Amino acid sequence: MRGGDPEALLTSAQAGDRRAIARLISFVERGGDAASAVSRLTWSAARKASLIGLTGAPGAGKSTLTNALVRLVRDKGERVGVLAIDPSSPFTNGAILGDRVRMQDHATDEGVFIRSMATRGHIGGLALATPEAARVLAAVGYPLVLIETVGVGQVEVEIAGAADTTVVVVNPGWGDAVQANKAGLLEVADVFVINKADRPGVAEVRRDLEAMLDMHVAPGPWRPPIVETVAARGEGAAEVWDAISAHRAHLVESGELERRQAKRATAEVREIIVRTIEAKAVAALHAPDGEALCDQVTAGEIDPHAAAESILKNLDA
Amino acid sequence: MRGGDPEALLTSAQAGDRRAIARLISFVERGGDAASAVSRLTWSAARKASLIGLTGAPGAGKSTLTNALVRLVRDKGERVGVLAIDPSSPFTNGAILGDRVRMQDHATDEGVFIRSMATRGHIGGLALATPEAARVLAAVGYPLVLIETVGVGQVEVEIAGAADTTVVVVNPGWGDAVQANKAGLLEVADVFVINKADRPGVAEVRRDLEAMLDMHVAPGPWRPPIVETVAARGEGAAEVWDAISAHRAHLVESGELERRQAKRATAEVREIIVRTIEAKAVAALHAPDGEALCDQVTAGEIDPHAAAESILKNLDA
Repeated sequence: MRGGDPEALLTSAQAGDRRAIARLISFVERGGDAASAVSRLTWSAARKASLIGLTGAPGAGKSTLTNALVRLVRDKGERVGVLAIDPSSPFTNGAILGDRVRMQDHATDEGVFIRSMATRGHIGGLALATPEAARVLAAVGYPLVLIETVGVGQVEVEIAGAADTTVVVVNPGWGDAVQANKAGLLEVADVFVINKADRPGVAEVRRDLEAMLDMHVAPGPWRPPIVETVAARGEGAAEVWDAISAHRAHLVESGELERRQAKRATAEVREIIVRTIEAKAVAALHAPDGEALCDQVTAGEIDPHAAAESILKNLDA
Repeated sequence: MRGGDPEALLTSAQAGDRRAIARLISFVERGGDAASAVSRLTWSAARKASLIGLTGAPGAGKSTLTNALVRLVRDKGERVGVLAIDPSSPFTNGAILGDRVRMQDHATDEGVFIRSMATRGHIGGLALATPEAARVLAAVGYPLVLIETVGVGQVEVEIAGAADTTVVVVNPGWGDAVQANKAGLLEVADVFVINKADRPGVAEVRRDLEAMLDMHVAPGPWRPPIVETVAARGEGAAEVWDAISAHRAHLVESGELERRQAKRATAEVREIIVRTIEAKAVAALHAPDGEALCDQVTAGEIDPHAAAESILKNLDA
């Protein structure tokens, strides 16, 4: 297999070889047979890894908060992995780094493994690659994984929302940003963080969040708490961690953790099925018959649904 | 068919019945057989509708610019449709309006039809529903359609990027927003607009954009122009329209318009195939056999790939 044998790489990775870890994650990003092989090796042992999602608008301070949480977790002596989902493009063929560079703080600490995930074409691929990458980290000694995504696109929000506990980071002034994906963020939030809480407008955003929670969250044992931070100075990070821990305790006690894990497993099976068939469909589309049908569609002789039906009929046959 | 017969609705819509237009677009949003029926009716006549995409970060002023462009187009006596892709959620079951309300300016003008598209579950559905809705508008007398999307999620950017001409709206200060999806936006941009150009930092953002264009855009007949606007006062809207018109002339002369239309047709066939199979896969997943396999995955007895393989084998059979 190109890039090495997954099983041998996993053994090296478990022995602490960081390049082997990076390669396994690259397999997972690339998709296809190598990704399946890696995923199969890690499922049984790592399927119950602790996943914490962090999401929020660009510039909300997610990376800074992630950085503060990593420091905190390391001070407790626990090992931690970070997956950062970067907006990226087949055009530039790479992720855009930014303040993520600050995470170089942890570059020499072998108890931390940080990785930016690139989309390589279609963001949809990340819905599968991200949990697979998290399991690689869990299988090689990072059982706690922070997953940071930009929280505007729905796919990106869903990726963070597929964690055990999802932290949504907002800022003072959020009240004005009517265009932001408030409803989507509210839906996935287990914990709210008002970051940059040294700026004016904290009371307003808190009131706004409480009102949304009153309106949309059914009374029950867990109401998302709202924690204030100034992540750039590390202020409030311990309180965020306490909220995450309290949420985890709630998940365990209520049986919700198992339900979330079962839901994730089903979602993953579904995603694999769809990707597999999609690959088959794309191949059919670019075969001579498929191209001829598409030409007819372009010419207006048949409509896209008629062409799709013909191609699907051939797929089944 | 629930909600009326698509063919009869189309006849009413073509006679100017706005409720019939709204219903046809609801069909398209909902997906399934009704959506296919509508799409089939409009393909041949409306497949060459003029589509203009507008995208950019939340708060960049896309709706305000759209509003200014609509006014301009109406002053020329042309009819225009607007599709606004709103972040939405199954949780709130509706789109979040905002400054879009301003578009009520045109509420009594029958030469304008404005519609917010809701995602109803999965953003992926919009990749299909948006061009179908645009063709509904084109088929009922709005041959020019503006498609406005929030430009942070990759899917959202792709929807705007699937237009004939895509306008990317940025603001002074964009240089700081390293986290924004610059590469993705750059890739789809045919025209750049620096909106809120009465604020400081215009020269910097222009320099930044020019440098990106120098680096990433191959020398050729079309280099995306950069237009400055203060859309809230209508300033620069005419220049944006001139740039869009110049791009259209370039598309026609170079043959690129036909290439883009052919590419869109193929993408649409692909999208229909994938959605169709996805529905089949979801049904298989929730059948008793599928659920039993997912339970085994959750329990760690088999891995997600093995479960997917079994289900796929049953789908083929």
